[in-house]
Amino acid sequence: MAFVIRCCYCGSIESALLTSPNRLIKKRRNDFLSHPSRQLELSKKCWPVSPQGNRMERCKYYPLLLCMVAEVSVSDNLLQFMKRKKDYIEEQLNRSIPLLDPRLGLIYESMRYSLLAGGKRIRPMLCIATCELFGGSTLTATPTAVALEMIHTMSLIHDDLPAMDNDDYRRGKLTNHKVFGEDIAILAGDALLARAFEYIANETQGVPAEVVLKVISFLGASVGYSGIVGGQVVDILSEGKKEVSIDDLIWIHKHKTGALLKCCVVTGALLGGAKEEDVIRVGEFAERIGLAFQVADDILDVTASFEELGKSIGKDERSDKATFPRLMGLEESKRFAEKLVQESKYLIEPYGKRAYYLEALADYIVSRSY
Amino acid sequence: MAFVIRCCYCGSIESALLTSPNRLIKKRRNDFLSHPSRQLELSKKCWPVSPQGNRMERCKYYPLLLCMVAEVSVSDNLLQFMKRKKDYIEEQLNRSIPLLDPRLGLIYESMRYSLLAGGKRIRPMLCIATCELFGGSTLTATPTAVALEMIHTMSLIHDDLPAMDNDDYRRGKLTNHKVFGEDIAILAGDALLARAFEYIANETQGVPAEVVLKVISFLGASVGYSGIVGGQVVDILSEGKKEVSIDDLIWIHKHKTGALLKCCVVTGALLGGAKEEDVIRVGEFAERIGLAFQVADDILDVTASFEELGKSIGKDERSDKATFPRLMGLEESKRFAEKLVQESKYLIEPYGKRAYYLEALADYIVSRSY
Repeated sequence: MAFVIRCCYCGSIESALLTSPNRLIKKRRNDFLSHPSRQLELSKKCWPVSPQGNRMERCKYYPLLLCMVAEVSVSDNLLQFMKRKKDYIEEQLNRSIPLLDPRLGLIYESMRYSLLAGGKRIRPMLCIATCELFGGSTLTATPTAVALEMIHTMSLIHDDLPAMDNDDYRRGKLTNHKVFGEDIAILAGDALLARAFEYIANETQGVPAEVVLKVISFLGASVGYSGIVGGQVVDILSEGKKEVSIDDLIWIHKHKTGALLKCCVVTGALLGGAKEEDVIRVGEFAERIGLAFQVADDILDVTASFEELGKSIGKDERSDKATFPRLMGLEESKRFAEKLVQESKYLIEPYGKRAYYLEALADYIVSRSY
Repeated sequence: MAFVIRCCYCGSIESALLTSPNRLIKKRRNDFLSHPSRQLELSKKCWPVSPQGNRMERCKYYPLLLCMVAEVSVSDNLLQFMKRKKDYIEEQLNRSIPLLDPRLGLIYESMRYSLLAGGKRIRPMLCIATCELFGGSTLTATPTAVALEMIHTMSLIHDDLPAMDNDDYRRGKLTNHKVFGEDIAILAGDALLARAFEYIANETQGVPAEVVLKVISFLGASVGYSGIVGGQVVDILSEGKKEVSIDDLIWIHKHKTGALLKCCVVTGALLGGAKEEDVIRVGEFAERIGLAFQVADDILDVTASFEELGKSIGKDERSDKATFPRLMGLEESKRFAEKLVQESKYLIEPYGKRAYYLEALADYIVSRSY
């Protein structure tokens, strides 16, 4: 079978006669890993373009190559760490939704379509890195890491619905409801949310049950009306309002995006056996990173092209939405993001080298694309 | 400090000068424990009523006394039991969604609109009654009972959405999305689902943490793609199909409705300290009751009037949906429901009088309206 593969970064086209594009991906990955000045990401962003140009229908099963030059000198270590963890997380995610009954094929496909649609897997990585920082194992953090990605995916599926943001594309692929219909998309989100809690309760090993309950409680609060949902509702209410202040915008993002990122780090710390003061400290670290992440996302929306981002661009601008660049200007937004990262680094300074990956992830989150 | 305490069973008022009402609770508990004919429950139902009548604000921290006479004679009993439990559950539901931040007013209203919209509260009652059957207390079962109603409410909100059943009325009131809009209704469902797990993890007292994890795991499975959601998806796929068999229909309802009813009883048993064989036994009891409940609901849809049911009537007929009356006829459906109830009674016979309320609830569920 012939595949034509386009690199999203350099635009170059490659074709290969292969039974699967995976071999080509592996080859390209190795090429890139041998260049320390380059940063590699596997993504489903670049699709195989068939000779017929039938792009969207061929793309479903073949994650291809996205290569970006990393001016960030974040070092080979982080790349290695991210690559290792990402492969591991993908494998765990793949195992987390088994086909329990042949009648469940459709909902199984729908849940997996979005859960395995790529993405940077930053949330699971933050959870695992924090657990390891406090001496916990990857294994102990894994069910929670998987659950965090399930919940992130659920919020994306519901957020993309016509009654919400009405997005047709996500990570360069059709959104869940465009493929499976609105009803199945709503239910797939519900099922991922329920599965997340079941998975933590059922699969977590190596820590006392009381700790697992704390994790579940914190996760529930981070998702519900005191977390993601609360942020989304206030965000919806703020749309089109002229008087949205920077404080309001910060409040919205601390809940809408920040709550789950904070949850990754706090649950990781709890599972790693951190003391209460350390849980609070890394929680404050994550609040700043979470906010910086959102500021970066707003900036991306202004500056990136469709090819770079894989989703509709300038959407925030069109919908008259309050964004950091709009309220404080592009340059000031960049400075604000940097300041938040500096503060966050200061917070985890006491952990020294043990916090290397957490710090590196923070750098990566904010500097990834501008 | 003075506290005035009302007994929920006998209505008698006691007052005491105490630094904490806990001492009075302990005294009353000892009094009751010395009477073997009486059953004692500690509950958050009776609140300290301050001399100013400032009831709700004082109630938060002081679980007070609920005393019940155990050997009461039939049917009035069930009514009394249901009324007492319903009042208690309504109060607990009311407390379960506090307004955490004034910005969250809209989502708070939306969640409470559906959660407090009435309903028979059968699910919490089943959970509490099963917990009590095995010697557990109402207090221990309460957070799970509340969570079960949250999840039931969430599934109704999402089920009513235009992309799903597109219903305008539920329990005689406008559906959530008709009042708050589709976006808020989707988010209110998500928030109730997340809050349910948070609530169990955070509020459950009186049992080991391992038991609470089992409850959460079973609940998650009952809601997700192996439970309610799975049943809904297969139900959607079966709509309009001519070849839906009785086996298919039973499968659908065992998941769509039965999974959560079974979950009520299984989690109640787990929280009451039941042995594994008893958990399985009451689980099988509940499977039959759950199915009988759905058969009764299908029958109701054919026979009941709008006033009796509070929702659009004959909807199943209009949408060309497979129902028990359609597949096996009205009379046969009634007999099927009765048979399921008989089997379920046989299963809990070994518990004798202790299972009185569970059995009475089973009767009520199936015979309630025809």
